[in-house]
Amino acid sequence: MGRTSDARRKILDAAESLIGRRGYSALGVAEICKAAGVPKGSFYYFFESKEALALAVIDEHWDAERQDWERILSDDTPPLEQLRRLFEATEAELRAGQISCGTVSGCLFGNLTLELSNQTELIRGRLQEIFDAQAEMVEAVITRARERGEVSVADTQQAARSVVAQLEGQVMFAKLYNDTTNLGVLWSNCLALLGATAPLPASAAAAR
Amino acid sequence: MGRTSDARRKILDAAESLIGRRGYSALGVAEICKAAGVPKGSFYYFFESKEALALAVIDEHWDAERQDWERILSDDTPPLEQLRRLFEATEAELRAGQISCGTVSGCLFGNLTLELSNQTELIRGRLQEIFDAQAEMVEAVITRARERGEVSVADTQQAARSVVAQLEGQVMFAKLYNDTTNLGVLWSNCLALLGATAPLPASAAAAR
Repeated sequence: MGRTSDARRKILDAAESLIGRRGYSALGVAEICKAAGVPKGSFYYFFESKEALALAVIDEHWDAERQDWERILSDDTPPLEQLRRLFEATEAELRAGQISCGTVSGCLFGNLTLELSNQTELIRGRLQEIFDAQAEMVEAVITRARERGEVSVADTQQAARSVVAQLEGQVMFAKLYNDTTNLGVLWSNCLALLGATAPLPASAAAAR
Repeated sequence: MGRTSDARRKILDAAESLIGRRGYSALGVAEICKAAGVPKGSFYYFFESKEALALAVIDEHWDAERQDWERILSDDTPPLEQLRRLFEATEAELRAGQISCGTVSGCLFGNLTLELSNQTELIRGRLQEIFDAQAEMVEAVITRARERGEVSVADTQQAARSVVAQLEGQVMFAKLYNDTTNLGVLWSNCLALLGATAPLPASAAAAR
């Protein structure tokens, strides 16, 4: 049983790493099993298909990321400060990945959205749920900030989607230029998108 | 000679359509030639490799898009109005594609950035040039708007990059949800990112 779980774990880890580096379509089951160090025959014992593996990778990745987001967005710091920490955590994670593998791999969900959403409805649906959840978490923060009179934006749902869109767009450029420096602009852009009514803190004002 | 050019043209058209629908890695040369209706043997007469074909598709697509951008961003309408027209043209093009093939295919350059920029340095370099050019074109408009006292943003280069990032992020969501409606928010978000000093026109204010 221990060995069985190990093999599944190894396949998942290898797949997440390979999908992050090279996308989904470029990979074959044989290559994933080789990287995982498990016999190819065992793959279909754990996963019905390559698509099922991709869904498992997406779910695992979101389970971990959602916990990070929940931790950052639910502590007792002021709401806009929570968003700043979320962007800093995103930047730190991308930089850590760049140091470990040489390139910025970007956002797994954004990568798979552009590669796959028109090809498999199962994966499209799962990615929609994840981005819906991200937008809802950000919207809750914006709503708290509005209750405190710190932002003036009227449509909090639309604003939350725009904050996540800005994040995905800037992460795309971090991947393209293999450079995370520009992510420092996320917070001041977020304040602008939300119509922050308080004076910008010095660090954000300097970045504009 | 006429037939030779026809075959190259057919390969390019088929490749652009297939890459738009299914990405680059999922395609094989045989499939592209079959869709183009040309013998597989003729592919390597025109293109050294699949990568060379992708570069040709990217260049052709950008030649056409750049002409659209230049036309929209260089007429005699006020600068912020030019940006609004650019977003509207982007939305119209994505909607036309959706009507013709059933799904929003997104931005070819954004799609290939997330799929390929860590896999081929040639394609990464070409995509960097294109996004640099887009940001420069947007920056020139922002600079004109600032000279007219219509926006307050200090770092026009950073602001231009953020406007293009917001565009790419929202186009990603248009593809994910197969719905272009949300692109209507691009202009009001752009005004917010640029610190537009004039009162928002009614249409933009309503969207916020």
